[in-house]
Order: sequence, then structure tokens, then C-alpha cells
Amino acid sequence: MNNNLFSALPNDKSKEHIEDLITSKNVRIERIVSYGQTSDDAFWYDQEEHEWVMVLSGSGTVEFSNGQKYTLEQGDFLTIPAHTQHRVSHTSTEQATIWLAVFYND
Amino acid sequence: MNNNLFSALPNDKSKEHIEDLITSKNVRIERIVSYGQTSDDAFWYDQEEHEWVMVLSGSGTVEFSNGQKYTLEQGDFLTIPAHTQHRVSHTSTEQATIWLAVFYND
Repeated sequence: MNNNLFSALPNDKSKEHIEDLITSKNVRIERIVSYGQTSDDAFWYDQEEHEWVMVLSGSGTVEFSNGQKYTLEQGDFLTIPAHTQHRVSHTSTEQATIWLAVFYND
Repeated sequence: MNNNLFSALPNDKSKEHIEDLITSKNVRIERIVSYGQTSDDAFWYDQEEHEWVMVLSGSGTVEFSNGQKYTLEQGDFLTIPAHTQHRVSHTSTEQATIWLAVFYND
């Protein structure tokens, strides 16, 4: 990737791609590119850090263990507090879904 | 603003608008909407925090005190280390410039 989040998309569409943009002690910023991938069935993320996540293109659905689901499209964002179990239950198969995720400590 | 960064743009185009999305001890995420505003002449930001900034729409130019200038358009991003003097020397007068800025401590 150069310095544009929409460019240099990975070629291999068989998997999800995570690239670190910033890694410091208290914050990590990632670009995540999904090509239809989802979390494994019954897999739940349970993270030490808080996460603020937005969708730059495409579409992705975040499901919480309480059953709530949020489908994010371009510009939509969501905050996921630490240890809030969640999974990605759907991403677009029509186009790349580009996520920008900021993980941070209190 | 609801939970979409492209929506509910402020009506008052006579000034720049800053909205906090996340404020925690070590990170602050802001949406900044500019309508042609720039930093005052000879004004330099000199920030305690590091800043990672991207442009979601429109166009903005960040100038550093060493003379380097970077014009950011949709998807372009830039990291500005703490105490690196900079100013915004131009933003689009054609359309809203929407910045997403992440300020963080080491």
C-alpha cells in the first residue's frame, strides 16, 4: 500500500488482509481488506483493546454475542468496547470491503 | 452526526467544524469538516500528541515548517509526529473536505 487506503488492494481474494498503519504502545491502526470472508462459525473476538471501526468501501456485518447485528456500509462506524464479544458475520462478495480499525487502550 | 462520517454535514460553511468521535486517555478521534478554511497565516500547529489523518472526501493540503507540502485527496493519509509544526494551507472550496484524525500518545 502506498499512502492511499483505496489503492494497492491485495490480489489474493481467497483470504482477508490486515496491514498495520500505526503501531504504538496505546494505539494500533489497521487497514483490513475482506473479499467475502467472515469469522468462523461460533468464533467470537474477545479483545483486550477497545476498537473503533469504519467501512471505507463495500459492506460488512458485525454481530455481537447478544444477537445485535450492525451492517456497515461506506462511512458507517461502530465502537466495540474491550471484551465485547463480536464476530464478522458477512462481508460483500461483490466488491472489496475496506475497513479502517483503530484499536486503543484506555 | 449519526453513525456515518459522510452524513449530517454541518450547514454553516463559514467555519470549520470539529466533532469528537472517541475521547479516551490515550486517543482522540475527530471528524473535521472544512469548507475552504485554512490555518491563519504564520500559524503553526505544535501538538503534544501524534496525529494520523486521512481525507474521506474533498481535498486538503498540509504544509510543514520545513516547506514540505502534502495535498491529500480521498483515501490519502499522513502521519504527523508530536511537535512537528504544520498548518493547513488549503482546503477545497468546491466541496466539503472531510478529515478523519486520530490523535494519540506514545
